[in-house]
Amino acid sequence: MDLTATAADLAAAASDVARLLPARVLDPVLAGLVLRADPHGVELAGNDREHAVRLTRPATVHTEGAVLVPARPLAETLRGLADHQVRLVVEGSRLAVRTQSARFALPLLDLAAHPGVLPLPPLAGRAPGAALAGALAAVSTAASKDDALPVFTGVRVHAAGERLELICTDRYRMAFASLPWSGGALDVLAPAAALAEVSRRFGGGEVAVHADADRVALAWAGGSASTALLAAPFPDDRARKLLEADAESTVLVEADVLAGAVRRAAPYSGPHGAVTIQVDDGELRVRGSDPQAGESEESVKASVDGNRLTKSFQARYLADALRAFGGGRVELRIRDGLRSTVLTCDAGEDGVELTYLVVPLRTP
Amino acid sequence: MDLTATAADLAAAASDVARLLPARVLDPVLAGLVLRADPHGVELAGNDREHAVRLTRPATVHTEGAVLVPARPLAETLRGLADHQVRLVVEGSRLAVRTQSARFALPLLDLAAHPGVLPLPPLAGRAPGAALAGALAAVSTAASKDDALPVFTGVRVHAAGERLELICTDRYRMAFASLPWSGGALDVLAPAAALAEVSRRFGGGEVAVHADADRVALAWAGGSASTALLAAPFPDDRARKLLEADAESTVLVEADVLAGAVRRAAPYSGPHGAVTIQVDDGELRVRGSDPQAGESEESVKASVDGNRLTKSFQARYLADALRAFGGGRVELRIRDGLRSTVLTCDAGEDGVELTYLVVPLRTP
Repeated sequence: MDLTATAADLAAAASDVARLLPARVLDPVLAGLVLRADPHGVELAGNDREHAVRLTRPATVHTEGAVLVPARPLAETLRGLADHQVRLVVEGSRLAVRTQSARFALPLLDLAAHPGVLPLPPLAGRAPGAALAGALAAVSTAASKDDALPVFTGVRVHAAGERLELICTDRYRMAFASLPWSGGALDVLAPAAALAEVSRRFGGGEVAVHADADRVALAWAGGSASTALLAAPFPDDRARKLLEADAESTVLVEADVLAGAVRRAAPYSGPHGAVTIQVDDGELRVRGSDPQAGESEESVKASVDGNRLTKSFQARYLADALRAFGGGRVELRIRDGLRSTVLTCDAGEDGVELTYLVVPLRTP
Repeated sequence: MDLTATAADLAAAASDVARLLPARVLDPVLAGLVLRADPHGVELAGNDREHAVRLTRPATVHTEGAVLVPARPLAETLRGLADHQVRLVVEGSRLAVRTQSARFALPLLDLAAHPGVLPLPPLAGRAPGAALAGALAAVSTAASKDDALPVFTGVRVHAAGERLELICTDRYRMAFASLPWSGGALDVLAPAAALAEVSRRFGGGEVAVHADADRVALAWAGGSASTALLAAPFPDDRARKLLEADAESTVLVEADVLAGAVRRAAPYSGPHGAVTIQVDDGELRVRGSDPQAGESEESVKASVDGNRLTKSFQARYLADALRAFGGGRVELRIRDGLRSTVLTCDAGEDGVELTYLVVPLRTP
């Protein structure tokens, strides 16, 4: 294998492959990056049997071929280069990374021991890349990071006619997004964090969603990534009913302004991290109180319709929810008792509808 | 106490006080920030008996007075404000931080229990602020961070006629800077990291250096900070001789270019973190070699005078040393055997002369 390519371009792709593979695997072969040069360019790929990624980049290929090298060292070496062009060439048992003044030689790993990168599962449908990336970023904040309960780390990806629905919940909050979809049936539960990380690589174009019984894959211009599905029943049917219930109080407020007030109240949120939202005439009062840190109160202008309720929330859950609505107005549907508060907004230009549920805290 | 001031200005000052006091002290009073309003403005001060800081900022004072509040919560609250103006007013047992739409109430601590901020020790002399800050940043990289051997965490500050000398060493490297000085005798050993952190607050003007047998203090327009001295004999007389010895090889090279090559070689520097510098005709060859990661070799253009030597160094020590010479050319005086390599450059426009010694590694 022998090729010349743009250093920055190759560095970004190698970093992406290294980041989409987990940092620690016992088998160095699974932490390897497959470089494959063919007349169309160079392919950078990885597969740790759970996640797989394949990126293609333009390159001038002098000799075709494929090698396996440690992913992180290659990414680090390419990232550090100050040169515009870089040459990757196999020299004996080494992959040499060459520039005009430098040569870095990485050991070759056993390509035959690598599982390779499987072909994509069958195509299920297509969605706009920016909309899917935005929706995944928003809903994945409601997923749990605790692998002990895998079902709550997942995002349910469900095709419903012309819409693709994404749902995450960790039991204390739930996020629901729907976006335009052209394709057939799809209903899978995939790791939310992995899909959100992958979606940051989408460009502006369409993204193809591929799935079978074991894996879901996303393919965009220049790359694709797949991840193993979570085998768990997702409790979204019951949760979905929560979205439709009536509210005692409906509040319209600038998401960023309310998020700012919640952020400023957080240092005063006490041992339980609780901030209190009081619905008042034409405003929300955001309060924090802690025996040690002191008290805070801030009023945020809002259009209020309905009863004057007071609710306490985990400050960081509320902050996560409001961030998903950043840059626009958010509607809060607040309900009596311990029933969840629903945050929603009008569908954006990208056709994404987003709804976020946050369960209030028991007021002391 | 009741005053109005610019929020961003006060936030920066409160953050500076919070940062110059250590994060953890057992006594909350010592982690407190003294706010003192008088007709000239507001003073923000702290003193944990080891470090002390006092900053003055303009303010419209409605009622004079002084209070003690927790430093970090105040800094965090001020930093989060989106308003231009902020009012600080004592309300009962609280300091209220008020903006148009918000009120944050911090508990008052017992000002009588606070040691207060001592007056500055006698003036020893003055140095240009930017030069002193640059020199402290450069030499403090050679100080140890290990508090178990306090002498190596210090910077010796020594007045020699018209020059102020700063010296740090952790035994494996030594940095020596001299800069313009107008004043009398001074010879103290102070914590290097603390002085370097303080020096980041200097503006462009002159800095006054005050000292007595226990403390050294730096005073600049708008603030002053003092720190307890280290009581330890500093081994710089022997070390200073090292600066003057002859070299077998003298190399002139762009510091940033060589630093880039060292940084790129670091992933290949092996279990001992060693990079090898080989002096060659018109170039330096920077090499790394690791049984697992592979090998690297990069050549850097240089003017070479003298013998062709090869030396190994700790990559991060060499990187620290080269960073101190960033933006210009550095002269390497390389000596035979295990004698240290001397890095130096012409005095800058600010009159700072800098010399950095790095002890080479025993070549395997």
